[in-house]
Amino acid sequence: MNQHLEFFSREMTEFGAQWREFLEVGRRAGKFPSAVARRSLEDTDRDINVWCSNDYLGMGQNPAVMEAVKEAVDAFGAGAGGSRNISGTNHLHVLLEKELAALHGKEAAVIFPSGYTANDGSLSVIAGRAPDTLVFSDELNHASIIDGLRHSGADKRIFRHNDVAHLEELLAAADPDRPKLIVLESVYSMSGDVAPLAEMAELAERFGATTFLDEVHAVGMYGPEGAGIAAREGIADDFTVIMGTLAKGFGTSGGYIAGPAALVESVRGFSRPFIFTTSLPPATVAGALAAVRHLRSSEEERRRLAENARLLHRLLTERGIPFLSSESHIVSVLVGDDERCRAACALLLDRYGVYVQSINAPSVRAGQEILRATPSATHTTADVEKFADALDDVWQELELPRGGGVREA
Amino acid sequence: MNQHLEFFSREMTEFGAQWREFLEVGRRAGKFPSAVARRSLEDTDRDINVWCSNDYLGMGQNPAVMEAVKEAVDAFGAGAGGSRNISGTNHLHVLLEKELAALHGKEAAVIFPSGYTANDGSLSVIAGRAPDTLVFSDELNHASIIDGLRHSGADKRIFRHNDVAHLEELLAAADPDRPKLIVLESVYSMSGDVAPLAEMAELAERFGATTFLDEVHAVGMYGPEGAGIAAREGIADDFTVIMGTLAKGFGTSGGYIAGPAALVESVRGFSRPFIFTTSLPPATVAGALAAVRHLRSSEEERRRLAENARLLHRLLTERGIPFLSSESHIVSVLVGDDERCRAACALLLDRYGVYVQSINAPSVRAGQEILRATPSATHTTADVEKFADALDDVWQELELPRGGGVREA
Ligand SMILES: Cc1ncc(COP(=O)(O)O)c(C=O)c1O
Ligand SMILES: Cc1ncc(COP(=O)(O)O)c(C=O)c1O
Repeated sequence: MNQHLEFFSREMTEFGAQWREFLEVGRRAGKFPSAVARRSLEDTDRDINVWCSNDYLGMGQNPAVMEAVKEAVDAFGAGAGGSRNISGTNHLHVLLEKELAALHGKEAAVIFPSGYTANDGSLSVIAGRAPDTLVFSDELNHASIIDGLRHSGADKRIFRHNDVAHLEELLAAADPDRPKLIVLESVYSMSGDVAPLAEMAELAERFGATTFLDEVHAVGMYGPEGAGIAAREGIADDFTVIMGTLAKGFGTSGGYIAGPAALVESVRGFSRPFIFTTSLPPATVAGALAAVRHLRSSEEERRRLAENARLLHRLLTERGIPFLSSESHIVSVLVGDDERCRAACALLLDRYGVYVQSINAPSVRAGQEILRATPSATHTTADVEKFADALDDVWQELELPRGGGVREA
Repeated sequence: MNQHLEFFSREMTEFGAQWREFLEVGRRAGKFPSAVARRSLEDTDRDINVWCSNDYLGMGQNPAVMEAVKEAVDAFGAGAGGSRNISGTNHLHVLLEKELAALHGKEAAVIFPSGYTANDGSLSVIAGRAPDTLVFSDELNHASIIDGLRHSGADKRIFRHNDVAHLEELLAAADPDRPKLIVLESVYSMSGDVAPLAEMAELAERFGATTFLDEVHAVGMYGPEGAGIAAREGIADDFTVIMGTLAKGFGTSGGYIAGPAALVESVRGFSRPFIFTTSLPPATVAGALAAVRHLRSSEEERRRLAENARLLHRLLTERGIPFLSSESHIVSVLVGDDERCRAACALLLDRYGVYVQSINAPSVRAGQEILRATPSATHTTADVEKFADALDDVWQELELPRGGGVREA
């Protein structure tokens, strides 16, 4: 064994073979959020209720979406067969980009193989190409944003999470002649809280900054036609770029940005994760297009999601189970300890058939370990009640700290 | 408009609005390589014969593959609904990873959303985690390899394309105690030539280097069961990691690496493009699994591909049309001039209904512009003959240089 491999062998011995075991989850189309799960290939299936999927609106099992995928498989086959520029652009890719631009009221949109590559690939261009750009980035921004900014090579200032005053301070301290870019999320993925968008937009306007808003956990779920939180606040126009995913509210796979044509065309022309890869399968695109279209006209899924979120907030508050924010459907139940968070997750699964993944460092800061619970439009009221009761039992059994409702991170 | 957006506006004006127009291609399942194409949403469809798809074996239209996708949609819905660690691992992901490890005779495998992210995400860990690793990388390695190595932050030496002596020189000059990693492709994507794998492996052994072999344009197409070129040469064991895609020979979407468990587990545990993204839709995974299984037992597609490649090599040689290599099915016809390469592409499409994308800088070096033609298992002998004749006409019309068969890049 050479020196290079020895390093990885030692590492594996240290961490143990089991360090990254993923629960196998078989969601059942038509029956979300119920699923079967097993711990390993040898294990047997058991029934569970999934409380940590990001298919928030159940669009993955929407009949129109499933039908669209299957029809496109029949028409075009299983894959795209090439990159966007080399035989891999189907009519459906173009239609989906038009639909997303329309959804967000922007000039243009471009889709990527995933939300991760959409952030990585577009930010490396948007932050990287205009010489001397100075970036302002929320400290809790997602890994894909951090990576895109890092890959851009641009100078960066980190502002404290959702802290308008801190952002203003940093903007005021910057050279007024430098191109500026503010990057933030609307609904934060791990804490579920919502950015003060109006204030942020006002600052951007005042200091002449471009804004890039990740609405990954909001598109489909909030605002008119599911256009997101900025749209709900009536200020989507104040954000230069809206970024979203097709893999959560829209139930399929892929990511995108929507914004001014000049920015979008530059991303198309220069983004390496966009250019040097096979495009999304037409069938996936067809499913996403059906989901976007459905959610532009249907309020039902959004209404059910909001009801379930409100109910869960209330039930947890009544039981004194602390969670980080009641501003969205992401209900991050705070455990605040690595080992007990894992134990709570295991107990919920084994005894109650409830699957909610424990989120430990480095996805959250040590001491901020959470059970990131996500009610969906497909949970019944009884599901929500059972979940709250199961949490209550586990809190009792593991003697976890209680606190009155929403607790600050 | 702020300073940042002004940059992109100016850029767009300079390049013109049309600078990245993608041909819309509607491949017809069951009828590959025939398709319909249009230049824009307003254009009308016309029939074409596709000569630049990477669905080399036509697996995208294989009935078992299409059926597997549709069945998995019916069973599990349209998307995965989560990242691998948070509800997004389906039994099928695990089965596909086992199948790919078995295909390549490695301990383990891990799949990514794409080949691009497989290279980017695994190389940043494999080159980046072991302190002081020195990387040796072929100068023609794919963008995704270059990006992964860049993101790893590791020191890097570039060896001249396929140049064993140069690699040896660089290895000999390096500190013997440093961990070493050699990164190369088997079939090069743009030139179609094949690396001298036995010599490379011998050097790696002698200097104690880990080897990472990108077989993206080989898996499915070459070797016993489609395991690739190293397997064909009987030396797959001499390569530490085999990397491949599910989007070309396997006709679907996604990428992977196969290698020692310790390396694969480290990638699972630390690769950000693996961790922080929604996993591949179970339906896509089901299609890929069906494709891999089919090609492990069927020789027919490989035989047809090889026949078509050989025929095209012969017909071009007879007509004095220069191409870069006859070592694989990638037949890069050399034009060597930006404008005339685009003109040849347009003429082939408009007059002959033959679609072969012109590849210009920066995908190839300026002066090395090519028509990257890819015969597939689904082209008929008549298709190949028509294509060669169309090229012959275009060579005449545009007075392109002739040269006897294979020309060195
Ligand atoms: C805020 C945020 N942005 C981007 C992404 C990436 O999206 P995708 O899962 O489509 O890659 C995620 C989640 O994965 C996210 O939470
Ligand atoms: C050599 C090489 N590696 C990796 C990739 C990326 O694979 P994928 O298209 O699956 O992202 C490609 C082509 O796109 C390639 O040519």
